[in-house]
Amino acid sequence: MLDPKHIEALKGIVGTENVYSDKAHLIAYSYDATRTRYEPDAVVFPRHEEDVSNILRYCNEHRIVITPRGAGSGFTGGALPANGGILLAMEKHMNRILEIDIENMVAVVQPGVVNMELQKAAAAAGLFYPPDPASEEYSSIGGNVSENAGGMRAAKYGITKDYVMALRAVRANGDIIRAGKRTIKDVAGYNIAGILIASEGTLAVITEITVKLLPMPQFTKSYMGIFPSVEDAMNAVFKSLAAGANPVAMEFLDSLVVHALKEKLGIELPEEAGALLVGDVDGNVAEEVEYQLHKLDESFKANGAIGFTVAQNAEEGKKLWYARRNASPVITIYGSKKLNEDISVPRSKLPEALEKIYAIGAKYGLKVPCFGHAGDGNIHVNVMVDGSNPAELHKGHEAIEEIFELVVSMGGTLSGEHGIGMSKAPFMNIAFNDEELALFRDIKLAFDPNNILNPGKMGLPNPA
Amino acid sequence: MLDPKHIEALKGIVGTENVYSDKAHLIAYSYDATRTRYEPDAVVFPRHEEDVSNILRYCNEHRIVITPRGAGSGFTGGALPANGGILLAMEKHMNRILEIDIENMVAVVQPGVVNMELQKAAAAAGLFYPPDPASEEYSSIGGNVSENAGGMRAAKYGITKDYVMALRAVRANGDIIRAGKRTIKDVAGYNIAGILIASEGTLAVITEITVKLLPMPQFTKSYMGIFPSVEDAMNAVFKSLAAGANPVAMEFLDSLVVHALKEKLGIELPEEAGALLVGDVDGNVAEEVEYQLHKLDESFKANGAIGFTVAQNAEEGKKLWYARRNASPVITIYGSKKLNEDISVPRSKLPEALEKIYAIGAKYGLKVPCFGHAGDGNIHVNVMVDGSNPAELHKGHEAIEEIFELVVSMGGTLSGEHGIGMSKAPFMNIAFNDEELALFRDIKLAFDPNNILNPGKMGLPNPA
Repeated sequence: MLDPKHIEALKGIVGTENVYSDKAHLIAYSYDATRTRYEPDAVVFPRHEEDVSNILRYCNEHRIVITPRGAGSGFTGGALPANGGILLAMEKHMNRILEIDIENMVAVVQPGVVNMELQKAAAAAGLFYPPDPASEEYSSIGGNVSENAGGMRAAKYGITKDYVMALRAVRANGDIIRAGKRTIKDVAGYNIAGILIASEGTLAVITEITVKLLPMPQFTKSYMGIFPSVEDAMNAVFKSLAAGANPVAMEFLDSLVVHALKEKLGIELPEEAGALLVGDVDGNVAEEVEYQLHKLDESFKANGAIGFTVAQNAEEGKKLWYARRNASPVITIYGSKKLNEDISVPRSKLPEALEKIYAIGAKYGLKVPCFGHAGDGNIHVNVMVDGSNPAELHKGHEAIEEIFELVVSMGGTLSGEHGIGMSKAPFMNIAFNDEELALFRDIKLAFDPNNILNPGKMGLPNPA
Repeated sequence: MLDPKHIEALKGIVGTENVYSDKAHLIAYSYDATRTRYEPDAVVFPRHEEDVSNILRYCNEHRIVITPRGAGSGFTGGALPANGGILLAMEKHMNRILEIDIENMVAVVQPGVVNMELQKAAAAAGLFYPPDPASEEYSSIGGNVSENAGGMRAAKYGITKDYVMALRAVRANGDIIRAGKRTIKDVAGYNIAGILIASEGTLAVITEITVKLLPMPQFTKSYMGIFPSVEDAMNAVFKSLAAGANPVAMEFLDSLVVHALKEKLGIELPEEAGALLVGDVDGNVAEEVEYQLHKLDESFKANGAIGFTVAQNAEEGKKLWYARRNASPVITIYGSKKLNEDISVPRSKLPEALEKIYAIGAKYGLKVPCFGHAGDGNIHVNVMVDGSNPAELHKGHEAIEEIFELVVSMGGTLSGEHGIGMSKAPFMNIAFNDEELALFRDIKLAFDPNNILNPGKMGLPNPA
């Protein structure tokens, strides 16, 4: 429990109206998308960077832990105040788009800006912000940067880190740091922005983000490839890309997901579909779109596709995407609780990885519907269990651990886009050796010697 | 001077034939492209990663400083053994392309591989490695990563950091670290690869590099825009890009360079050319190339261009590029010594930046021919002096310092692609405040507590 004198001191910094310490608010800010709950001792809403600096300096001096929070939509507990202390919430004041610089094709935003707001503001200026996590309607750019969020368009356009040009951030001691520039090239000094991305609020509190914007593509079309088996679809993924196709997105649905879509939503999908690949292609000219569709059609059919559909208008495109957009909710027919992991492997390993993941599921008697961003090797693996059955839940967790071991042994990663946070922290020693984990601790202490910033996340030490 | 027992110990690690300590070799390895000389105490050629680990562990224990060296082609002294000790040279053994993985579109190389060898190996597999520093024929990928090398294609394709997917590296204490994966998405743990890029050998010794490759574009054409003035050309740069043009390269030559090209090489260029923009556009389909050329033609003419030429074949393209490729050697007509800096500003600031840079030159009575990568805001600024005249050389250095102050005040950077090394270290306090420089030191010490790795570079402390 935080000494009330600290609450008063924080009120002195940001104003009484910007500190919550009543029970109702502490409960309201105790959760994220993991549905795990940890109450902070206080929720503090900084008004600007100077507030952040003053709060951190005070907390550093008094060894009060701080958890930065964007929209609280994370899947791994990165924004949960697991050690109590201060929840530093960006949503109330630090949520403005500061600038859309059309001339230099960049946007400058505060961390609390919602991803879709940035996409819309860019589009209104004729520009394009590609990163599109599934949470785009509510997740914040600060959270996106802290977790290095991906999304569907990553196959062609990359992920959040590919768009961050500059950051402003506050170190644990209150020092304000500028990292990067509004220039394509900048090689002066260490790449501080590079290490702050994906650091999950453990190194510094991000206060301003400058991202690159692209010209808006002129033409887009949606496609769907229909495959008899997951293996065929997975072969088609890496072989079509290696053959030169460069789709915006290449999303995968396995046969369990296809079955669930028919069963629960009555979506009409081909009888014989053992797996689907759905996506978009784009270009500045119609011929580029046709080139991409031709590449995909050709490669898909060379790899066993039994159908290739192209949407001829936006409405047809929406229909093709409807299946993908509903993949996540429908699979609850296989179990009341889903243990949802977002592994990623080199694309050529997808056929083998999926085969072995299903085998692990079978071994534990659990269904494992899979879908996701096959075009970049990132698959959402859902181990479905009866949440009210502790024995089955335990089996599910054992299956997850085996899946992580498999994925890492194949050159893959624990997380393609959700981060490590709390929920994957127990598995860090599968992915990293002692020397690598020691380096992470050394970096953490270099930025934050008193371990006040989001301690205990990512397998890093809890407060002393 | 290094105690001879250390030389013997190093011979014990890598073999006698892989340690040079005779005067002739120490002189041969004392230079880089800055033409400054510092002799190491020994040159050591590790055979493999394990050698690197054993060498570093030994040197860390005995506080012997180490400077990693790729091809020694750097422009800022990053690979100069300024504090003596061991020069760790990658060129002899650690120079192999380990794998071109066509299925996953990645290459795995050792640090001593020459950039062009990688480009060629990728092309032989139908793939494309875009980063093309002017030193591509001789600089090494290890050096490219350590300095985050750019190049002409950065306007469309970005720079070295945009291609590094994974690194293996050895910390000062000998620990072998794997960073990143052969996957597009990987958000587990700190982005160690992100901070090693551009760290100029001060944090770890890179032993293996995995880079992303792209499909080879099918069509390319070269163009040249002819402008009456530098201001018109600079306006055309950012306005054409903001209008949606996305050229592979957009290179700039100012009127002093144009004059020198005519004078020294007799190149035929339009009489009225006050500035030129030269570059390539590419695409998978011919229509994309035409779209890009149309965008450029239209935007250039709307911004004062008096001519726009498109090369109709490879030979014509070569002719357009001949002027750009000879920009650097011809400007010696303005002075025997060139103080060559590679500043970068947000593109919309280019007109103002160039105007003010010429004014600084005029103030000191010096010619400042400028050329370079305007499409990404990175300009090579050449303050020309009589190298045999100490007073003029001094004036030149004063002009450079003023130029750095100007550029930083405009949101630009000390270096777009050459790095800081030794030659720009004195200017670090123009670009960074005390808090930022303190963070750099803290990070350096986290990786390398005994300060043995390339100490004194980038404004970091020299050995105690």
